[in-house]
Parts: sequence; structure tokens; C-alpha cells
Amino acid sequence: MKTKAIFYHAGCPVCLEAESELATALNPDHYDTEIVHLGNEKDKLPEAEQSGVQSVPALVINGKPYHINFGASLADLKG
Amino acid sequence: MKTKAIFYHAGCPVCLEAESELATALNPDHYDTEIVHLGNEKDKLPEAEQSGVQSVPALVINGKPYHINFGASLADLKG
Repeated sequence: MKTKAIFYHAGCPVCLEAESELATALNPDHYDTEIVHLGNEKDKLPEAEQSGVQSVPALVINGKPYHINFGASLADLKG
Repeated sequence: MKTKAIFYHAGCPVCLEAESELATALNPDHYDTEIVHLGNEKDKLPEAEQSGVQSVPALVINGKPYHINFGASLADLKG
């Protein structure tokens, strides 16, 4: 079974670069990668928070958050 | 030709977790992943700095740095 990986972003320049370089770099044989734009899909904010995501871009693998550089804080996306 | 990816770490707990989850997750068909322990290989510090690495763990893909969470600053590793 593949591991679930979720890449959270918000369309910011830092996010887009991380998306194109990193979110697409995961081994497709082992990872099922979903890309979530938290600016457009605000209903996914609680899910991201629950996984420990504090800022975007972030990659959640196996339920664990990996913050990649810094684009925007989750708090800013709630406004 | 494969893209070069270098994962820089320093043996810290945050680093080791990122290494086991993320450095090993890159698509081996497209990425040639090298793992560098900057605590043990201090001669690689200038190379990491030149790529823009400011803290570990960090992944450099195509010469661009992606800082993953925060383990230790590069400055601390120079001591």
C-alpha cells in the first residue's frame, strides 16, 4: 500500500517553487501525493492543523509535518 | 540524466526523522540523492552554504535549498 503524502500550499511564490521541485519529486511507486491549496480549500485548514502544519509550504508524510522553507503561516490563511 | 539532490543533516533528532521519511522518499528514477552529515564532514560546509543552506536538515535540489523543519543552524555546526 502506498504512503499518503499531502503537500499543503497557498499559491505563494515559495509554495509554487517547492511544489514544482519537491512535491513532484516523491517516488510515485511508494507515495500517493495529494496537493492541497489552503487558500482555496479553507475547509482543509483544520485537517492541516491537526497534522501539526504551522506554515506553508508543508509536506505531511505518514501524518507527520515537514515544513519546507517559509511562505505563509497558517494563522494568516485563516483571515 | 538524474537530478542531483543533496540532503544535509547533522545527526540531530529532527534531522534523522527527516532523513528517514523524506530523503529516502525521492523518486530514484529521477533523483540521485546524496546524504551529507555536516557534523562529520565539515569540509562540506562551504558547499552547503554556497547552495544557500542556513540550517539542517535541508535538501538541495537542482542547487536550490529547501529547509525542512529546524534542527540546527549552520553557524552552530561551525563551532
